[in-house]
Amino acid sequence: MGFSIRNAVKTDCPQLRGLIQELADYEKMPDGPKINADQLEEDGFGAHKYFHCKVAEEEGKLIGFALFFFTYSTWEGKCVFMEDLYVQPEERGKGIGTKLWQSVIEAGLQVNCARCNFQCLDWNASSIEFYERAGAVNLSAAEGWLSFRMDREVMQAFLNK
Amino acid sequence: MGFSIRNAVKTDCPQLRGLIQELADYEKMPDGPKINADQLEEDGFGAHKYFHCKVAEEEGKLIGFALFFFTYSTWEGKCVFMEDLYVQPEERGKGIGTKLWQSVIEAGLQVNCARCNFQCLDWNASSIEFYERAGAVNLSAAEGWLSFRMDREVMQAFLNK
Repeated sequence: MGFSIRNAVKTDCPQLRGLIQELADYEKMPDGPKINADQLEEDGFGAHKYFHCKVAEEEGKLIGFALFFFTYSTWEGKCVFMEDLYVQPEERGKGIGTKLWQSVIEAGLQVNCARCNFQCLDWNASSIEFYERAGAVNLSAAEGWLSFRMDREVMQAFLNK
Repeated sequence: MGFSIRNAVKTDCPQLRGLIQELADYEKMPDGPKINADQLEEDGFGAHKYFHCKVAEEEGKLIGFALFFFTYSTWEGKCVFMEDLYVQPEERGKGIGTKLWQSVIEAGLQVNCARCNFQCLDWNASSIEFYERAGAVNLSAAEGWLSFRMDREVMQAFLNK
């Protein structure tokens, strides 16, 4: 048997939404995901593709995914950003996460990306170890980069300043 | 007199490359920028636009810029990421940075982005204060998000694992 990695298609979105929820639960933020499968279909498979996605499938069921998009560095040029990488707990240890991650990197190198970026929560020691083992550098520690966010209400308020 | 904010055009790229260098010098990483004006033209104004850019202009000269692109959150949907925000030192204190930032947020809200994200170096207290005054949340501090990066050599090595 075993799993296969392929590009996500529109009809994967309901299952994908389920995996996104599992990841949020694992990250201890179960109320995080606000979007539904319809929005994923529109944003990832509509006229403008805001993301790309690779899925791991076994016996017709999705057991993991890697969601990514292309970003830009004014120092190095095109970059690929891996937003989510998730494998169901019972499927871990089989190399599925590595294969998904490699498929994202492959997509990045195909368009000549200079970097692969992603984020990880500081308490998630096993993921940090997994990433660092592959050669990824913790930029927050190495260069002191901090991440900032404004939500929609703050964005709107800022426009009225 | 005064400045105006407009969308960058292809012919701005040589001046834009100069401003990118000024920002890298300010960030104490003068050897950071590896790309040239031709690459900016191709990546930002070619068939696939990897970035968008707003510029501040005064008397035909560029005095600041904000470079951004659209990303995706599996929790909230579309987001706008501000990669660079820069105003020449002698032009600061006139509200140019705020106007540039607002123009990025406006572009984000136009396509219904739920968030505006960006990064800042931890020693850059004046910028952090500027961002937090506008309501931006330091996610590295609030939620413990760390940023990771692989460069091209590490990406290639990881594919051969």
